[in-house]
Amino acid sequence: MNPLRIYVDFVPSGEALDVLRTATRGHELVYSRTPVASVLAKAERDPQIAKVDIAFGQPDPVAVLESPRLKWIQVSSSGITRYDTAEFRGTLSGRGIALSNSAAVYEEACATHVLSFMLAQARRLPLGLRTRAANGTPEWLAVRGASQTLRGQRVLIVGFGSIARRLATFLAPLGVSVSAHRRRPRGDEGVPVVAADGLDAALGMADHVVNILPESPETRGFFNVARFAAFRPGATFHNIGRGATVDQTALVEALRSGRVGAAWLDVTDPEPLPDSHPLWAEPNCFITPHVAGGHAGESVTLVRHFADNFGRFLRGEPLLDRVV
Amino acid sequence: MNPLRIYVDFVPSGEALDVLRTATRGHELVYSRTPVASVLAKAERDPQIAKVDIAFGQPDPVAVLESPRLKWIQVSSSGITRYDTAEFRGTLSGRGIALSNSAAVYEEACATHVLSFMLAQARRLPLGLRTRAANGTPEWLAVRGASQTLRGQRVLIVGFGSIARRLATFLAPLGVSVSAHRRRPRGDEGVPVVAADGLDAALGMADHVVNILPESPETRGFFNVARFAAFRPGATFHNIGRGATVDQTALVEALRSGRVGAAWLDVTDPEPLPDSHPLWAEPNCFITPHVAGGHAGESVTLVRHFADNFGRFLRGEPLLDRVV
Repeated sequence: MNPLRIYVDFVPSGEALDVLRTATRGHELVYSRTPVASVLAKAERDPQIAKVDIAFGQPDPVAVLESPRLKWIQVSSSGITRYDTAEFRGTLSGRGIALSNSAAVYEEACATHVLSFMLAQARRLPLGLRTRAANGTPEWLAVRGASQTLRGQRVLIVGFGSIARRLATFLAPLGVSVSAHRRRPRGDEGVPVVAADGLDAALGMADHVVNILPESPETRGFFNVARFAAFRPGATFHNIGRGATVDQTALVEALRSGRVGAAWLDVTDPEPLPDSHPLWAEPNCFITPHVAGGHAGESVTLVRHFADNFGRFLRGEPLLDRVV
Repeated sequence: MNPLRIYVDFVPSGEALDVLRTATRGHELVYSRTPVASVLAKAERDPQIAKVDIAFGQPDPVAVLESPRLKWIQVSSSGITRYDTAEFRGTLSGRGIALSNSAAVYEEACATHVLSFMLAQARRLPLGLRTRAANGTPEWLAVRGASQTLRGQRVLIVGFGSIARRLATFLAPLGVSVSAHRRRPRGDEGVPVVAADGLDAALGMADHVVNILPESPETRGFFNVARFAAFRPGATFHNIGRGATVDQTALVEALRSGRVGAAWLDVTDPEPLPDSHPLWAEPNCFITPHVAGGHAGESVTLVRHFADNFGRFLRGEPLLDRVV
């Protein structure tokens, strides 16, 4: 086989670089001249893409379509918003270019992150960590009485993929009842799945609603005034999908009215929210800065996943996390 | 059977009162004239105890020993520190008085609470919730890079009872390696148990050390300078047992030196710590106000557990959570 040219738009170092070099020995790595700072950042358009076989990172969609040689794009994130249009998917399909993402790299961390949200909410950690009240005082009784176990609670996951699957296994021993909403149920979800016509009823039953929707024209503003109105009063809303899937003005109103009891968000629109944004002022809104997928050794996991897929590509086997 | 007289030193209301009345129909409930404010508070000495068959709550140990009729004490907490002396146990045994606690009432909540601590630490929630940094900035990379999954981490539980057992089931799908230290291993723990001579080595391996020790003359100051010196550098220490089992001066030093990377404490000595206590000033020390056992409907769970045991007592069956 002729050596392949592999475009990489970030700068691996240490163990990640070793893994990448070892996996691609005999082939050529082509690095971006303007590397991105994180797997979530958009790369600049780079004419080098015209001369490679594989692109690994967040390559500019226009540059990708202009490349005559490209056979496979491995996106370095789980989300593929900037590539997720019918037109782009259709062009890739037509030209036989594969598109895969790095969902497997982040699913464990994302599921762990949302589990940490659910438990912090159940145990009222933000309140407890700032309360110094003595045992038996009304303030103490309020914290203690508001604390919960998850046993018997209902969790509805909106957007059912590998993160949801992992989350369901984490929740099983906690005695939680898990169900999911998915556009196209496949029957292999392992939990009850509600279709679009059952979504409002399911929202009305859930103690925790977990949003893991990707961003696409169909999901933009998915959680709007009407959806929040269907929530069980006081339910907790979690978002580790994408910020644009939520109408944030509607969320502020839902928090103010108490319809949504608490919101735990790892993603917002934009990121970070400006300091003046009303979500910062909501006492029951808790925001982490898009770190759900992060984990120590992340760059190594990312490169290992690519290395695994590169072996599959060479052998003509099905790619992991293939999208197109 | 003659009606029994049951002393209750707290004031049940609503559903809890209904459950108690229904379970003890045909018998007599005797309420304390100075009810306690919480299941953790010590009740005052009450001469009424001399004329009852059963005491439910936190009855004064001296009053208990002076009662000629008493046959069974159900302590309303999981901890039994004020009754846990060889002398008191011996006297109860000699007089055929049973002592049971309410461990089953709190085990789910306690296990959930410490799980929330472990996940909040793994996901760096206290840091993430106060970080508004943009994607790709050094501040953001620091939060994201410090975040962890629990997979492959080692958890050592010190004090292995029903809470530890529950915690181990919660941790199983997270890929954590759980081991325990117990004074008298029974072989039915379901996880590897280290004896006293292996404790220091086990402390040196653990990413999370979970202290669930009760307070007794043997456990007071158990986590001292030498024990913290055996920790793996940067490990996280959790305490949901009793505050007095920790030498808090040693803990402050261990946090300052980095030997202990973070401490999550639900119990301290005293409670609450005075505002001037140096643990409050440690940036990686997180304290909740002794609420680990709390859960919505706690008083109902507590009374149901007593009602269950009362039925067992009447039928001459073994009591749940029996200690003596």
